[in-house]
Amino acid sequence: MSRADHWLLPDGMDEVLPPRARQIENLRRKLLDLFHSWGYELVLPPKVEFLESLLTGAGHDLELQTFKVTDQLSGRMMGVSADVTPQVARMDAHSMQFDGVARFCYSAEIVRTQPDNLLGSRSPIQIGAELFGDGGADSDLEILSLMTDSLLLAGAENLCLDLGHVGIYRALIVEAGLPDETEAALFDILQHKRLAELQPLLAPWQEQQPVQMLLRLSGLNGGPEVLASAREQLQGAPAAVTDALQELQELVEALQQQYPQVNLYLDLSELRGYHYHTGLVFAAYVPGLGQALAKGGRYDDIGRVFGRARPATGFSTDLKMLASLQGNLQARTPVAAPAAILRDTKGRALVTQLREAGERVVFIPRNSCSSAVDGGKSIQQLADGSWQLMAADKI
Amino acid sequence: MSRADHWLLPDGMDEVLPPRARQIENLRRKLLDLFHSWGYELVLPPKVEFLESLLTGAGHDLELQTFKVTDQLSGRMMGVSADVTPQVARMDAHSMQFDGVARFCYSAEIVRTQPDNLLGSRSPIQIGAELFGDGGADSDLEILSLMTDSLLLAGAENLCLDLGHVGIYRALIVEAGLPDETEAALFDILQHKRLAELQPLLAPWQEQQPVQMLLRLSGLNGGPEVLASAREQLQGAPAAVTDALQELQELVEALQQQYPQVNLYLDLSELRGYHYHTGLVFAAYVPGLGQALAKGGRYDDIGRVFGRARPATGFSTDLKMLASLQGNLQARTPVAAPAAILRDTKGRALVTQLREAGERVVFIPRNSCSSAVDGGKSIQQLADGSWQLMAADKI
Repeated sequence: MSRADHWLLPDGMDEVLPPRARQIENLRRKLLDLFHSWGYELVLPPKVEFLESLLTGAGHDLELQTFKVTDQLSGRMMGVSADVTPQVARMDAHSMQFDGVARFCYSAEIVRTQPDNLLGSRSPIQIGAELFGDGGADSDLEILSLMTDSLLLAGAENLCLDLGHVGIYRALIVEAGLPDETEAALFDILQHKRLAELQPLLAPWQEQQPVQMLLRLSGLNGGPEVLASAREQLQGAPAAVTDALQELQELVEALQQQYPQVNLYLDLSELRGYHYHTGLVFAAYVPGLGQALAKGGRYDDIGRVFGRARPATGFSTDLKMLASLQGNLQARTPVAAPAAILRDTKGRALVTQLREAGERVVFIPRNSCSSAVDGGKSIQQLADGSWQLMAADKI
Repeated sequence: MSRADHWLLPDGMDEVLPPRARQIENLRRKLLDLFHSWGYELVLPPKVEFLESLLTGAGHDLELQTFKVTDQLSGRMMGVSADVTPQVARMDAHSMQFDGVARFCYSAEIVRTQPDNLLGSRSPIQIGAELFGDGGADSDLEILSLMTDSLLLAGAENLCLDLGHVGIYRALIVEAGLPDETEAALFDILQHKRLAELQPLLAPWQEQQPVQMLLRLSGLNGGPEVLASAREQLQGAPAAVTDALQELQELVEALQQQYPQVNLYLDLSELRGYHYHTGLVFAAYVPGLGQALAKGGRYDDIGRVFGRARPATGFSTDLKMLASLQGNLQARTPVAAPAAILRDTKGRALVTQLREAGERVVFIPRNSCSSAVDGGKSIQQLADGSWQLMAADKI
């Protein structure tokens, strides 16, 4: 192998160098402090868990995305965390066992076998918040508000929120009672927006009311006014549909009032995470970014296989992607001090004092070039042995 | 599989729950800010890299500790990071390519196939600092001082620093020219402190001066006074030995002056990380903890295989272990607010104001029990529609 090979990083497994790493750290702190101020408790999920607990309720996609390793201690298969949400749900259900409303937040470096899209990262820093124990619209609004506040705090401009509700499709498909293969084909068509195939597929059942409504669903997207036409076009639909439309209407009104600068887009045939989500689903976009900036939704059923189904809603984003929205960090020029000061009690006291006042003080080892701190202030020893901070222009 | 199995975590792969996770986060920030104030630049090494770059120069132990996975994109073997130090050395040598003194710091969750000791963690948070580009004693003292400051900041009490210098053994073994198998046996004996086997092994060569010195080495440990007897007992040793003793003497004096509360212990036959380290080696201990709290040393040769050998020294510790030295965090009782406040502009403004002043405000969803915030302050809506913060005792 050539020397250069040693240096290559696998595609999508990126390292972060200065000063961007500090910028990510600063944003991490701001977001975790925001979550803290909303009452969300920080948790640190394990990096590696047994596969069964990692993948439970999470669906096939996550299984493909998870690196597998053998546990040398137990001989069992383990996975490297590729999505923190199911881990936090397990922690809520098992480790905490709190009956009331519980709020958790996290920031974790995860890895995935495949990137989400062609040029995507396989090593995002997933940061997010989850709310367990309340199935109401209040909690959906809380999570949506916290996500929006987070993105605005990170400097996102021209934010657009996409809202959907998988309960609408779910209720109509139950009512329609289509053959399994037709149902699978319909799901595939809607997910990939191949709408030209919709009419031919459903033609044999197009006299039935729920099928007519499924056909209309694909056209129900756009601004908040979509909700009014949905109420009209889906009149007579099961109560679950009416309830979902009512919740969306309330959410839209609350969001419009609190975030007049944010655009809202509704898509009633949005099926992202359908096998996982159970109610409201949402994603945030900014112009020019080829993927969602943040996403989330309600996933009430995740604990069921463990016998402790709790209502759950949450959102997450990639801290690295979010930090890339910000301008470059201005690094402060450090103060240079000769390393000999490390051996002098009074000198060290001066250095400590400067550092506590927010300065960066770097030691210059004997016989080393000090080019790193050209142009900054320096500490110098005077003839009487005392130390003094010299301004840059006095050197 | 039974339901309980879903919940088990692999041995040593622990999760961190509230409030300890927040305590770890607080300490993380304090340490990274300390490193920053010393001029160390934060880097985020990749979680997963190709095996060759991950293991280069790091030795056999790390290979055994590293989980391996196949890269589905390239078909090559990758490893999950089990030690950040070689990764940072690669970043210094390749990604930064800065010729002067470079300082980097990091905090990274790593995983290992095996725990370091019987009850040890396989998922520490490795936090540390590395200094590249200067091979002098000034930089050794800087790293030792930064490590000591870090541990004191974390609340370590009755700290003891163990100091050794692998250059002493290395110079004597070259001079002695023992047969390879004898040299391997000697190394094994010294590393496991099976000192009774020492005399019989070396008997055939005991007339030679370097062999006599190797025999004396195992007795040269204890307080700083060991250095005086070492100078006596190793008189006539190669210059590398005298230089190493001189450096240790200077370090001891500087540390005694700056950290009178810290105990110093010297062990001239300490061979920890011998195949990796090249000069000063050190570890920090506190009473009652069955393992080193932090460790580090000089490892100048790590870049050689890449054609860019840079002097290097650094230290690292496990943030989780370090945080466990601290007492429990006192959680602040949050302020409770009805979730309806999320739909009211003036109410939200009050909540934001309280949060920015350091309060935690949690929303209580309709129909949910508010037991989580019993005994704390609350926000209530008055008859005129305005919102008011009520003290705990007024409810």
